[in-house]
Amino acid sequence: MSTDRVLITYLLTLSAGESVEEKARTIASEQTVELPDGSYPKDVGERVVGRVEELSQLSGTLWRVTISYWPGLIESAVPQLLNVLFGNISMLQGIVVSDVELPDELLSTYPGPRFGVAGLREACDAVNRPLLCSAAKPVGLSVEQLAVRCGALARGGVDVVKDDHGVMGQAVAPFRERVQRCQQAVLDANEDTGGRTLYFPNVTAPAPQLEERITAARSAGCRGVLVSPFLLGLDTLRQLAESSGIILLVHPTFSGGLFQVGHGFTPALLFGRLLRLLGADGVIYVNAGGRFPVTAADCAEINRRLLEPLGKLRPAMPVAGGGVDVESVGEWIDRYGTELMFLIGSSLYAQPDLETATRTLVQALERHARG
Amino acid sequence: MSTDRVLITYLLTLSAGESVEEKARTIASEQTVELPDGSYPKDVGERVVGRVEELSQLSGTLWRVTISYWPGLIESAVPQLLNVLFGNISMLQGIVVSDVELPDELLSTYPGPRFGVAGLREACDAVNRPLLCSAAKPVGLSVEQLAVRCGALARGGVDVVKDDHGVMGQAVAPFRERVQRCQQAVLDANEDTGGRTLYFPNVTAPAPQLEERITAARSAGCRGVLVSPFLLGLDTLRQLAESSGIILLVHPTFSGGLFQVGHGFTPALLFGRLLRLLGADGVIYVNAGGRFPVTAADCAEINRRLLEPLGKLRPAMPVAGGGVDVESVGEWIDRYGTELMFLIGSSLYAQPDLETATRTLVQALERHARG
Repeated sequence: MSTDRVLITYLLTLSAGESVEEKARTIASEQTVELPDGSYPKDVGERVVGRVEELSQLSGTLWRVTISYWPGLIESAVPQLLNVLFGNISMLQGIVVSDVELPDELLSTYPGPRFGVAGLREACDAVNRPLLCSAAKPVGLSVEQLAVRCGALARGGVDVVKDDHGVMGQAVAPFRERVQRCQQAVLDANEDTGGRTLYFPNVTAPAPQLEERITAARSAGCRGVLVSPFLLGLDTLRQLAESSGIILLVHPTFSGGLFQVGHGFTPALLFGRLLRLLGADGVIYVNAGGRFPVTAADCAEINRRLLEPLGKLRPAMPVAGGGVDVESVGEWIDRYGTELMFLIGSSLYAQPDLETATRTLVQALERHARG
Repeated sequence: MSTDRVLITYLLTLSAGESVEEKARTIASEQTVELPDGSYPKDVGERVVGRVEELSQLSGTLWRVTISYWPGLIESAVPQLLNVLFGNISMLQGIVVSDVELPDELLSTYPGPRFGVAGLREACDAVNRPLLCSAAKPVGLSVEQLAVRCGALARGGVDVVKDDHGVMGQAVAPFRERVQRCQQAVLDANEDTGGRTLYFPNVTAPAPQLEERITAARSAGCRGVLVSPFLLGLDTLRQLAESSGIILLVHPTFSGGLFQVGHGFTPALLFGRLLRLLGADGVIYVNAGGRFPVTAADCAEINRRLLEPLGKLRPAMPVAGGGVDVESVGEWIDRYGTELMFLIGSSLYAQPDLETATRTLVQALERHARG
């Protein structure tokens, strides 16, 4: 395989009567010329149609296939990248995109995290232990009520308090007032405790408001924000990474259609590679053991890919959401190591006092990380 | 059910041991508070948690469930709408969103098509027959080569020649040069034939370029453009509908993860309702009988929903992509009626002469529409 082409690896599940060669050729054509052989100039076909580079059988009907593509299809434009990765083939069946390798020249056009793991740790002043994040929720609370919860979580000692992803621009808790009051509640708590908790407001909004909210967050002194790029379009993340100058913690809401069993992206590629390329500093994914059907192996692979060497791109912080409580946090550290952030909500809110529940968890986490 | 709430209908497939009541309550909580009962004020819960309104069994493990939501969660913001429709539940399994009814006040905040069926027909000067669209392709051709194909399709008499969805900003056919040359090729053909063919360039691009391309298309005299909102973010479509002043023909690339069998949206809701709400004038969907696994019944239901009464919103033109050729066009008209546009590519390009193939198809279509 030549390294001057884009290499995309697929896991293909064959349906009855389908041959792997046929399915691979369908992809190579569907994602490029979308026309029968012979209906375009031969030299264009040779350059543009994907080239099937490798076919290997993993089990009965499951194959791993690598197809290489002309980088000129993709260039540095995210919509062109997404279209080649999973454009029309998204409407077929039995295709999982499991890896993508870009030539260096193309890779270097992607921003990657501006802050990444080191920037987030510096902002939190925390080394050698997992970070801890929780959310001010639920949606429907007033600004005052949300600020009280931010204060309790900060007093309990989490590293980051974020808005719930469902808390966006609702009139019940208007953004500008929310960012000021919640940030103040966290600063007040820090002053009392000597802590360093950060507040990340959720800036997810239509494009015209998004920029205003980022500016308001920065003006209020926030070091980071929460954003849901699957709601906004993935290129929005790249634009924010290039221009916002603020830590970007990314939420996976609305992403589930992209990693269905047997069709879509592998979670490791989507969360571990693609979001990092586009500039996420922290990547929230749904953790095994929580409310969602994912495996711990998938999560470990997301972690690995967020942290592995990748050109000149900084590593991004894995953020395991859900499935963790005071009893299990030690096991999760044993499994995932310390280079990640835990996002914990329900197990804290289910207890009678939010601040005490948070403090107990923070202590358990520090004990296990030292141990 | 009260009409001042947002009603969302789901088709739920139960897995072993799952009860429909439990699954419905999971959705009602996951899409709103995401917290255990009792961990938020009672009045907030009563307002915010989704209310299960109706459960009806369709077959063994398949249920239809309607849940109503507080409109204050959604308001007029598309990211808030998408998050309530299919946010965190996208990461669960066995949930198909099949309908959404918005209260009038909320519905009236969505633009709907600015031109719609009537505007597209006026631009094409065509009544009482299906419209015909084809694409200048494949990606990888030069501007000159694409312009020749545009000219041939226009001389053959299609109503609309669009750029292929894969033809975006690639250096091999730069946008500004492309829009001028392709538009000129179509105007020249119209002058020779007395026809009214329109050229719609593909403006899909990162936000900063998108606006430039729309402006360039308008300057070149184009009446419409092609755009792929699943690549750009669905709110982009709404913004274009509100501000671009040009006919928006919408392509479904990258949408397939959102309508998987057993999980996602129904095609009728996604293409027939949601894209119309957001302002698509024409909605391309993959037609039955082509390269994609869809049924003719699904397609007919998309057509119906694009055209049915919906508040003050204009109907949008259904655009059936693929599966149609000179032999079958009559059957498709019998099945779908005349209020749609056919998008035909491969079956024309597979023939020796593009202009002749197009003319033969146009004649067959007109014959069947009259008959």
